[in-house]
Amino acid sequence: MYLASDNAAPAAEQVLQALARANAGASAPYGRDEPTRRVEAMFSELFEREVGVFLVTTGTAANALALAQITPPWGAAIGHAEAHVMHDECGAPEFFTAGAKIVGVPGRDGRMTADGLKALLARDFWTPPTHVAPASVTISQATEAGTLYRPAEIAAIAEAAKAHGLRVHMDGARFANAAAATGAAPAELTWRSGVEILSFGFTKNGAMAAEAVIVFADDLVKNLAERRKRGGHLWSKGRFIAAQVEALLENGLWLDLAARANATAGRLAKGLESRGLRLAFPIEANEVFVWLPPSVDDALRAAGAAYYAWSSESIAPERSGRDGARLARLICSFATPDEDVDAFLGVIDREPVA
Amino acid sequence: MYLASDNAAPAAEQVLQALARANAGASAPYGRDEPTRRVEAMFSELFEREVGVFLVTTGTAANALALAQITPPWGAAIGHAEAHVMHDECGAPEFFTAGAKIVGVPGRDGRMTADGLKALLARDFWTPPTHVAPASVTISQATEAGTLYRPAEIAAIAEAAKAHGLRVHMDGARFANAAAATGAAPAELTWRSGVEILSFGFTKNGAMAAEAVIVFADDLVKNLAERRKRGGHLWSKGRFIAAQVEALLENGLWLDLAARANATAGRLAKGLESRGLRLAFPIEANEVFVWLPPSVDDALRAAGAAYYAWSSESIAPERSGRDGARLARLICSFATPDEDVDAFLGVIDREPVA
Amino acid sequence: MYLASDNAAPAAEQVLQALARANAGASAPYGRDEPTRRVEAMFSELFEREVGVFLVTTGTAANALALAQITPPWGAAIGHAEAHVMHDECGAPEFFTAGAKIVGVPGRDGRMTADGLKALLARDFWTPPTHVAPASVTISQATEAGTLYRPAEIAAIAEAAKAHGLRVHMDGARFANAAAATGAAPAELTWRSGVEILSFGFTKNGAMAAEAVIVFADDLVKNLAERRKRGGHLWSKGRFIAAQVEALLENGLWLDLAARANATAGRLAKGLESRGLRLAFPIEANEVFVWLPPSVDDALRAAGAAYYAWSSESIAPERSGRDGARLARLICSFATPDEDVDAFLGVIDREPVA
Amino acid sequence: MYLASDNAAPAAEQVLQALARANAGASAPYGRDEPTRRVEAMFSELFEREVGVFLVTTGTAANALALAQITPPWGAAIGHAEAHVMHDECGAPEFFTAGAKIVGVPGRDGRMTADGLKALLARDFWTPPTHVAPASVTISQATEAGTLYRPAEIAAIAEAAKAHGLRVHMDGARFANAAAATGAAPAELTWRSGVEILSFGFTKNGAMAAEAVIVFADDLVKNLAERRKRGGHLWSKGRFIAAQVEALLENGLWLDLAARANATAGRLAKGLESRGLRLAFPIEANEVFVWLPPSVDDALRAAGAAYYAWSSESIAPERSGRDGARLARLICSFATPDEDVDAFLGVIDREPVA
Repeated sequence: MYLASDNAAPAAEQVLQALARANAGASAPYGRDEPTRRVEAMFSELFEREVGVFLVTTGTAANALALAQITPPWGAAIGHAEAHVMHDECGAPEFFTAGAKIVGVPGRDGRMTADGLKALLARDFWTPPTHVAPASVTISQATEAGTLYRPAEIAAIAEAAKAHGLRVHMDGARFANAAAATGAAPAELTWRSGVEILSFGFTKNGAMAAEAVIVFADDLVKNLAERRKRGGHLWSKGRFIAAQVEALLENGLWLDLAARANATAGRLAKGLESRGLRLAFPIEANEVFVWLPPSVDDALRAAGAAYYAWSSESIAPERSGRDGARLARLICSFATPDEDVDAFLGVIDREPVA
Repeated sequence: MYLASDNAAPAAEQVLQALARANAGASAPYGRDEPTRRVEAMFSELFEREVGVFLVTTGTAANALALAQITPPWGAAIGHAEAHVMHDECGAPEFFTAGAKIVGVPGRDGRMTADGLKALLARDFWTPPTHVAPASVTISQATEAGTLYRPAEIAAIAEAAKAHGLRVHMDGARFANAAAATGAAPAELTWRSGVEILSFGFTKNGAMAAEAVIVFADDLVKNLAERRKRGGHLWSKGRFIAAQVEALLENGLWLDLAARANATAGRLAKGLESRGLRLAFPIEANEVFVWLPPSVDDALRAAGAAYYAWSSESIAPERSGRDGARLARLICSFATPDEDVDAFLGVIDREPVA
Repeated sequence: MYLASDNAAPAAEQVLQALARANAGASAPYGRDEPTRRVEAMFSELFEREVGVFLVTTGTAANALALAQITPPWGAAIGHAEAHVMHDECGAPEFFTAGAKIVGVPGRDGRMTADGLKALLARDFWTPPTHVAPASVTISQATEAGTLYRPAEIAAIAEAAKAHGLRVHMDGARFANAAAATGAAPAELTWRSGVEILSFGFTKNGAMAAEAVIVFADDLVKNLAERRKRGGHLWSKGRFIAAQVEALLENGLWLDLAARANATAGRLAKGLESRGLRLAFPIEANEVFVWLPPSVDDALRAAGAAYYAWSSESIAPERSGRDGARLARLICSFATPDEDVDAFLGVIDREPVA
Repeated sequence: MYLASDNAAPAAEQVLQALARANAGASAPYGRDEPTRRVEAMFSELFEREVGVFLVTTGTAANALALAQITPPWGAAIGHAEAHVMHDECGAPEFFTAGAKIVGVPGRDGRMTADGLKALLARDFWTPPTHVAPASVTISQATEAGTLYRPAEIAAIAEAAKAHGLRVHMDGARFANAAAATGAAPAELTWRSGVEILSFGFTKNGAMAAEAVIVFADDLVKNLAERRKRGGHLWSKGRFIAAQVEALLENGLWLDLAARANATAGRLAKGLESRGLRLAFPIEANEVFVWLPPSVDDALRAAGAAYYAWSSESIAPERSGRDGARLARLICSFATPDEDVDAFLGVIDREPVA
């Protein structure tokens, strides 16, 4: 019953097989290999336009590199107050931007809104050179609350951003889950809605370690290669990142795996609700936030279930747990066994909610 | 009627005279001069213990250097949510720390409290290496709201900080105003209450441009000289910073000038209140925040008064202006003429408050 | 006939098999997995003492992280004038150290000497805070010229370094080749000779992408986890780096593969010399630098041989090519086929050296 | 007999008087004052074109800010191997550029040449993203050896630089001495010869502390204000830097003072030569490098003369001292008394050169 994170999943079988296939003979190093060339073409096809592609192996690297391309040291990158780049990357964005500020904007259910962004930009303290200047916006898809942005919401945020000269980044650590859940075309979820640079995550969705920085705005390609090298993120044996991505893009495997993760989370959520438990946020992708009565929480822990206690005050301040209920985050991956969900619900059945 | 900032004041006459006196013949460069030596001794006497002294010429430099000594790149410096280091230094702390985070804690009247700090430190997201680790606390004396910390309040904050291993900085851009207003000994306001490194401002209080980083914790002296040089803040003709500070420390001139600024602000505040105007914060030093009815505001502007409209939502969200009143910040310096205060109040007399 | 670099080699079969074995079920993320635990124990056994282990996936990251641990922003890291960290990492050491200087010291055959280091340290310009202060030494094992340091040479350099308070790093991108060639114990090549932190490379030696920062000096462990995370180098699915390293450490596979690479290079060198070609440096590991008459160079290129033209002025200024000979760098990996060497020499046989 | 540096000189009387004049009443802060406006106009007139003007108070700050405008973190700034920015600023250029490399090019008498620059740029290691890319050139006027560049030499260097896309900076810490000595128009010494950004030094030439970053290339103005603020170099009471510069620019005082410094150095050099002492470099501005027999050196030290022993190996390797002679650097300022020169020569008369 491992529901702590989708980053604890193994790699998909197809990814391992692709690595084995790629492992033949010498190959030009530093991304000048054939698999990398093929993957670049696949991304351009997937996004229905030419894109810049920079492969790395962690989401932290992808986000930090992308933000550094669009946020000068004296600029601010604006994200949701609970965004991963704000809290969970040990200052990597600050490091790669040479000291920019990451500024949070609040928003329900983990989602920033165009209105929230406009209100922040309308504040009177953005007065360079005294204050840093707002430079970019970063949208997490899916959000830290497991919710999603629809193309129209993205477009509204991007429009507000561009009206102030801000560039637009999407942190797509769970982009696959969003694409699978919404059914929207990747182009629709990104550049057609104003996104200029994307961190496209594959690690949580079946890769061993693979993320792609996808660049839609032509001027943002410049010097990204230097930033990547300088950050220590240019692999010599680049084929081994590319092969992973290729395997996932082929025949839509990335969408199939994400759909499976979403479906498992949906089934889990339904099971929780039918047992009288209250969910904290709408279930839109592969994350489930649920309020657990202490006795249920204790029973699940005792039964060996692995998941994170979540901070009720930060992400859901207005919904603090009634009667001492504890907020738990449950994440399903493509590899979460159905039996784990059944077993999890089974524990609850034995420790009924009052 | 210039009440926009005390940093628009001229230098005190004694400072100019000291510069002229210092201007004789050759002198060892880079702070190896006699006036610098003398000033170091004066600070040790003033603080009743040996201290490290590093002279610079801007408050931004002093704060950024001090914070860099106590906050690693993967650390967070915690200050009041409205602190100058958060908003008004164009990311200088981030620059000098190589990308640390400056994290705000709310607090009434511009003041952080020990309880507020404890609550922030008790949050569950401080989990290195995922999240940055809290490393330091910075206390603004006087605050951005013109209020003061008493020694006991400082000690409580410092105690809470040290319980978590945080180092303690004081941004004393208006330290003189605080010392003059409270009558507390400089030692009491700093190291005896747990402050380990201080930005001691002289510029607003009569210098041309002079600030001192005062180091109380011995281990924080190391490499501060390198940081200062590397930041471009080591003057070759160092005697000309030292001479300013010497003139101000001599015979307590720094306290006399600050007392005069405080007294002028007090008289202004009393005049405003007696005319029916509402003050936003307690008047404790040389800053006055007042709610101006639009007609009064307009009349003052028309009469040539210079002051800043303040952001009512940020610094005083709970006290938004009634009936459209506008929040104004009025600052008095040691050089603010009594006539300016009289003239300011005179305008209000002619445009009576409803 | 791919002799351009050992980083173009595939991964060893055993590494792929280990990845497949590791790919079972959920696993705690961020290096809290079992394979990482096992690898840490294996390194401690290999080095005959407890060591700190930080896995990453590029040599650039390993070197930059290690140098950042021992070189403050106002310090200098001293390496051989041709060192990889000087020229081939796009400023990664400067990035991770927040702007330290990398200072080169000359030395024959790519090797720094204790005397050369002493002479540099005796120069009169190391006067902080005006000049940066020497902080660390970095030794490349094997060197950029394919030569090696024996334990006594390392110890002499380390002793000179420590006499000036410098910390000692070894860039072991080809540490395996050095260990296999010298037969010296890993402990002998490192901490027993004064090395305090090591970049231990596995990528060139059969991994897909795996490098370990090995910390011998206890005080250098602190905050390396934060640096790694902040640099974007902490993998969520850490087991997939660890599994590679485990496969290579098991039963001494790392030494066997390196020995094979060295032997192939030795055979190639012998073949070149027996055909009348002049070698630029002693052949000690898996790199061969040879002077090629233009006609031979052209014939090899025409036959499809891949290798780098080397800069004769930088690495071997005193031995510039006679009669227009061109300096070529040939590198053999564990996977270089014997047939490639035979074919390479065969081309030369058909285009005889005058 | 203080000949150690011109930065040990006092300020010119006119500068002190100007400070006193500027010290009247309140003034808009942060460079929005009248004296700053006037100085901007004066610089545009002096350079015969509109220029960007950014006042700071140290040469280190001026150089670091200027280099940061023209050198990205993954770039190299190329200067003479003995340049001040290479050795004497504790890594300030690395700090402000966020980790660029400062690369030295050798050249006789402290001077870089266009040919030397071309040769360096023709080297085969400039291969981004592996190696950093050359981004800028910095020319010291006067050089560290006290020699000068004529407009034609500057133009040749700038042309070579621009042919490779490099931007051109001049470190004019002693620009006044160069202008006074050559008689060339400031425009001729800078933008008409290809210089795009200039550090114009006033501190050594009679200011208390004042330097101006002068921007000729329009695109290099952008964000310099942010860099200055973020570096802590924006004075609140900006009039006090501007007043210094104004006093020096008025009626050509800056040239008069520099001419006096140059003349004093010339007289000193002539006196040394006539006493049989050998000069190390041509005397072109206000610096004299002379080889002193040990007995003479000792006698001068005993008599209280202050000057630096210079590193004979670094700046003049080909001219190492014969018979144990020691290289001494003697610098004259506008304020060096004639009596000091006489006394200095008098000591030598009493300790005759063999």
